[in-house]
Amino acid sequence: MEHLDVPQFLGLLVVMLGAAKIGGALAQRISQAVVLGELVAGVLLGGSIVGLVDPTTEVLHLLAELGVVILLFEIGLETDLRQLMQVGGAAILVAVVGVGLPFALGYAVCWGLGLGSLVAVVAGATLTATSVGITARVLADLHRLHEPESHIILGAAVIDDVIGLVILAVVESLTRGHTVTVLGILQTTTLAFGFLAGVLVLGRLVVPPLVRWVGRVDLPGTATMLAVMVAFGLAWLASTVGSAMIIGAFAAGLLLRETPQAHEMERGVAHLGHFFVPLFFVMVGAAVDVRVLNPLEPANHQTLLIGGLLIVAAVLGKWLSGYAPIWFKGNKHIIGVGMIPRGEVGLIFAQMGLTGGVLTPGLFSAVMVMVMVTTFMAPPLLKLLVPSTPHRDQPSEPEGIDDLVTKS
Amino acid sequence: MEHLDVPQFLGLLVVMLGAAKIGGALAQRISQAVVLGELVAGVLLGGSIVGLVDPTTEVLHLLAELGVVILLFEIGLETDLRQLMQVGGAAILVAVVGVGLPFALGYAVCWGLGLGSLVAVVAGATLTATSVGITARVLADLHRLHEPESHIILGAAVIDDVIGLVILAVVESLTRGHTVTVLGILQTTTLAFGFLAGVLVLGRLVVPPLVRWVGRVDLPGTATMLAVMVAFGLAWLASTVGSAMIIGAFAAGLLLRETPQAHEMERGVAHLGHFFVPLFFVMVGAAVDVRVLNPLEPANHQTLLIGGLLIVAAVLGKWLSGYAPIWFKGNKHIIGVGMIPRGEVGLIFAQMGLTGGVLTPGLFSAVMVMVMVTTFMAPPLLKLLVPSTPHRDQPSEPEGIDDLVTKS
Repeated sequence: MEHLDVPQFLGLLVVMLGAAKIGGALAQRISQAVVLGELVAGVLLGGSIVGLVDPTTEVLHLLAELGVVILLFEIGLETDLRQLMQVGGAAILVAVVGVGLPFALGYAVCWGLGLGSLVAVVAGATLTATSVGITARVLADLHRLHEPESHIILGAAVIDDVIGLVILAVVESLTRGHTVTVLGILQTTTLAFGFLAGVLVLGRLVVPPLVRWVGRVDLPGTATMLAVMVAFGLAWLASTVGSAMIIGAFAAGLLLRETPQAHEMERGVAHLGHFFVPLFFVMVGAAVDVRVLNPLEPANHQTLLIGGLLIVAAVLGKWLSGYAPIWFKGNKHIIGVGMIPRGEVGLIFAQMGLTGGVLTPGLFSAVMVMVMVTTFMAPPLLKLLVPSTPHRDQPSEPEGIDDLVTKS
Repeated sequence: MEHLDVPQFLGLLVVMLGAAKIGGALAQRISQAVVLGELVAGVLLGGSIVGLVDPTTEVLHLLAELGVVILLFEIGLETDLRQLMQVGGAAILVAVVGVGLPFALGYAVCWGLGLGSLVAVVAGATLTATSVGITARVLADLHRLHEPESHIILGAAVIDDVIGLVILAVVESLTRGHTVTVLGILQTTTLAFGFLAGVLVLGRLVVPPLVRWVGRVDLPGTATMLAVMVAFGLAWLASTVGSAMIIGAFAAGLLLRETPQAHEMERGVAHLGHFFVPLFFVMVGAAVDVRVLNPLEPANHQTLLIGGLLIVAAVLGKWLSGYAPIWFKGNKHIIGVGMIPRGEVGLIFAQMGLTGGVLTPGLFSAVMVMVMVTTFMAPPLLKLLVPSTPHRDQPSEPEGIDDLVTKS
């Protein structure tokens, strides 16, 4: 499977995209997140069931990585830093507690089971980032996007993605073999923040004139291709200076968001995303070995135990974060439950831990189960807590969110 | 260079796309076809000059092939068979003569030089298809898209693309090692026509219900991804039954053109095209060894001689085809000159001949020179023959052409 000829490659892409789209559509039909359907499609196509998709195939791996870079670029393009700052202290507090508590609980679980601190850091990190796409989608379906609780959830979900990106850089550096020292974490954090800050400051000087200059070229697709090149270029740069690729891609999104062509870029890149992003989730799913989840096999009991404990840590950590802004008068239950679903970023961590050799296939599968369970449980729980209002949201609903929600 | 890690891959894509876009923009600035700039960018990045792009890198080769499939799919999506039939006999006659005469002249040149009949067939085939993109672009720039001469040129250019596709299947089969027999050519022609006819007949039964059924899925990008899957799937099928991949992709375009979502698909796939198609042209350019064109090196004289004779055959063959519809009262010079530029399809033939081992690097470079020269010479010649009219074209100008013109 390592070397593909062109027809094999075309056939495999059709199977992967087709399975992802069918899985996504079925997931949507049963009121679940589209990304879940894509993951399940990947699990089915992977080595432990059908065996059509080998996650070690070089070209598929490279295309899937383009998918992550494009996804994080799109999230950056959707993220308005100023708007987030207006949501105020509640969102920041929920985000910080919602990152810190699950991380601490996850770390404690793994450390308590004697798995070593590197594994504990990676597993804890997979619990930190709420999937903004899944949360926003559920709130939109319930016609609750304009309630204060929803603003806090969305704000916190985006902030914890940003914190997650910094943690990601730390984790990536750790999985590349660096030892866990306070100094090392401090260095990587500084590098991640420094790279992001440096790119944002320098980028504000360089990118707008570049976009203006390129804007004079009268060729279709120029804005989109410029966006792709800035995203890939900054991802490459981030990786080269020792930070994480997706921080570069995210920074590219933040920078280009300020340009007049942002909307054109968003639409254009979304089409590339429809192609590349599902390939990433299918590849993530294909790496899941369902056999390690068989409870009848005694060797799997530890994996299942860890998976169960990670789910408890994941749910408890985010749920409690909803009560952190004690001054907030609204429905605090909704906030905590809304923060529960994990998604893309957690999967990226897990994938990184697997390829870096830090997570065993069993632990990787445990994390996958955690992501799936937290994502599955949030929509029904939210529906219990929030009765759907009969009126539809106004058409003035923030456009970015709508696009983002259904993205992958 | 065979195996790339992710940052290398990202960096290489930025360089290739950036060079293609800069080359395209510069070409446009000096009133040349965008595709020429992309080819020149590839030549510069290739092994004989900068050496950044190795055309044998597996993942780049596979991505470039996706580019060809997408390009032919887009051409199919733009091709209205019924409209072509209305353009009447003149276009068909120009197309048939414009395919037959250059092929015969090219074959004669190679055969006369003792190169063997397989080489002669492939070289002759590279001369057959006018680049509809380049021609249409020049006519649009001159505000002449609605003159009868332009209708004949565009119709003939599209018809010779279809004939070219059949020749392509023959050539592909030949370059895969089959010997040139009348029976073999007949078989391949039957297979190419049969596959196209079979797909169009069966497809009309299967595709519209499929599109309607998939249209009920409320996920963004569904139509575009369906289009990609049908295109890749039929390309795979064509290859599997022994026809050419791009006939499958072209047939997919013809089929989906009839569906209500055709316009949405066109816009979505165009974005994928902006990414993948330039990669193909850069890879084609990167395969050119400029050193074999050095006239001071005696070993190159045969290549240069063949290149020169191919240019004569290419220009003469198409130019004379303009006079074939003797009953037409308009300006016949314009028709012949408008048919001169060669492009995508010729390059695909040449690339196929090179990878199949039929064309030597020297002959491949001779064909490349022919494509470049014919494409370079048409715009200035047309400008001499056609004074630009001061009034702008009506906005009712066929939309497809405008999209197609500036595509790659």
